[in-house]
Amino acid sequence: MHTAGDVRVEDRDDPKIIEPTDAVVKLTATCICGSDLWPYRGIEPADHTLMGHEYVGVVEEVGSAVKTVKPGDFVVGSFVISDNTCEICRAGFQSKCVHAEFVHAGIGTQAEKARIPLADGTLVATPGQPDPELIPALLAASDVLGTGWYAAVAAEAGPGKTVAVVGDGAVGLMAVLAAEQLGAERIIAMSRHPERQKLARYYGATDIVEERGEEGVAKIKELTNGLGAHSVIEAVGTQESFMQAVGATRGGGHLGYVGVNYDVTVPGIELFFAGIHTLGGPAPVRRFLPELIQLIWDRRIDPGKVFDLTLPLEQAPEGYKAMDERRATKVLLTL
Amino acid sequence: MHTAGDVRVEDRDDPKIIEPTDAVVKLTATCICGSDLWPYRGIEPADHTLMGHEYVGVVEEVGSAVKTVKPGDFVVGSFVISDNTCEICRAGFQSKCVHAEFVHAGIGTQAEKARIPLADGTLVATPGQPDPELIPALLAASDVLGTGWYAAVAAEAGPGKTVAVVGDGAVGLMAVLAAEQLGAERIIAMSRHPERQKLARYYGATDIVEERGEEGVAKIKELTNGLGAHSVIEAVGTQESFMQAVGATRGGGHLGYVGVNYDVTVPGIELFFAGIHTLGGPAPVRRFLPELIQLIWDRRIDPGKVFDLTLPLEQAPEGYKAMDERRATKVLLTL
Repeated sequence: MHTAGDVRVEDRDDPKIIEPTDAVVKLTATCICGSDLWPYRGIEPADHTLMGHEYVGVVEEVGSAVKTVKPGDFVVGSFVISDNTCEICRAGFQSKCVHAEFVHAGIGTQAEKARIPLADGTLVATPGQPDPELIPALLAASDVLGTGWYAAVAAEAGPGKTVAVVGDGAVGLMAVLAAEQLGAERIIAMSRHPERQKLARYYGATDIVEERGEEGVAKIKELTNGLGAHSVIEAVGTQESFMQAVGATRGGGHLGYVGVNYDVTVPGIELFFAGIHTLGGPAPVRRFLPELIQLIWDRRIDPGKVFDLTLPLEQAPEGYKAMDERRATKVLLTL
Repeated sequence: MHTAGDVRVEDRDDPKIIEPTDAVVKLTATCICGSDLWPYRGIEPADHTLMGHEYVGVVEEVGSAVKTVKPGDFVVGSFVISDNTCEICRAGFQSKCVHAEFVHAGIGTQAEKARIPLADGTLVATPGQPDPELIPALLAASDVLGTGWYAAVAAEAGPGKTVAVVGDGAVGLMAVLAAEQLGAERIIAMSRHPERQKLARYYGATDIVEERGEEGVAKIKELTNGLGAHSVIEAVGTQESFMQAVGATRGGGHLGYVGVNYDVTVPGIELFFAGIHTLGGPAPVRRFLPELIQLIWDRRIDPGKVFDLTLPLEQAPEGYKAMDERRATKVLLTL
């Protein structure tokens, strides 16, 4: 991205092994993330920035210290590099690993190949070479599915719980899928977009709420005996959506927030009197990858449906445009 | 409190049973809370406001529907009225009960007697008539101990955990006691007040950190291998202390916050990238009362030491002054 709004596909040198813990992956598919729109819209800086942090592909070469993946393996990687051995990783928070690096900062997987540091701690090999039809689903696991899953876990979605999902983008839809898999009793998708409502229902939403802000909160309370939802997932990242999520959570309930909330300021006293659990931030996707890959492999979940536009990598600029204009929820780029 | 800074002890009519679920309690002791300083300092409005929400005493009379306490019982009550039967109460969040009312709003236990609504859900009887020496400890259970305990539970203090406590007031000190009881491995008290440091060590603090703000965060990281504490307790409620607590929590760690944070605004993005669990608000003291009373009864904990000034109720104005000027940590009022 040369600057905001200006994405170009250009030749770069092939990545090479630098550290013995590196792997070079020949990518099979990649995609454009909602968070890539931050620099595209000028909210984050962009200056000849390498783009992309979601990826699946075949390992081409590994450094001498890499043990768990080998050339020829098909792999899914997290959007955060992690060693998966430090105390923070072992506690399940690989996105806060002591060696954490964001893939989008300096690697850029909207590319033919990528050098992935700390390959053992970041990549997970699939049980074999996947059928082509599984590629979108495996790619989704790299971020949107992993992030939506984390949000649902953070919100403690599970049996007997009513879960409200604020946000009908790819992550919100994946959170609906996750809540359903985790056994939630009732899943309320907050959406006013007919196509996304349909997909939310496909993934397990039992109710749709179109209202937003205070009206949205009132509607969630109306549906939950005046109490609010047990579990609320925030997958947007605006002031309105964040406070809507806080307001929709019952006292003692759990809010999982994964929308990158640059412009949000939370009034301490509102959070205080809400009396709720919160957990959020960049998802430790690596924690969930083995389980998510298996669910996909066994065809028990189908997260690939969130991609509603597929383009060859060379047409990435059109993909950004389509997402920016909300003509597409999520764009898959083929290689 | 006639107005900010103007506390008077005046005659009022004796409270009477109004609802069949009420009890009238003849108070044995009451106290002044750090949060009573909010209106005293003009941060909350005060206009002939009844004051006080901490209380122990002997039940004088009960309504026809009250089953678990009877005249003559010695009782400890929570500072929030709760039915202890609704869905929220059953989940352990009695301070968010569907019938929650703050005792300070309309009852006022800095008094000789108080009418306590929903007596079964709010009061807990002690195993018998307490020795006078246990009165301060039982009174502490009504709020500061219960609140500090909740903060420690919210921060998931426990075996193997390093716990940092921001705030050396009565609640912070009680959080140290609670962390110790919950089995924390290491307890870092953040305090620059020699007397309070001494009390923190008495209650189980293993380390003292005098630095504040970013320096305080750096010091906590230095003591925890660069990671931050597993569990952090915020018991002040200022912008600096809140952000200090966020910064001192390791990725994936737990922040329990109980300082009433009127002027705090939390930058969403800092909370986002911190990647931490948070839980806070008015403590559901009722959840912990049976356990805390038993610990006190068995003389396994001695929370009464937080009271460092005892005055007769008539001298309440002097008690407010002493706390406002930080000459006293917490003032017990005798009857």
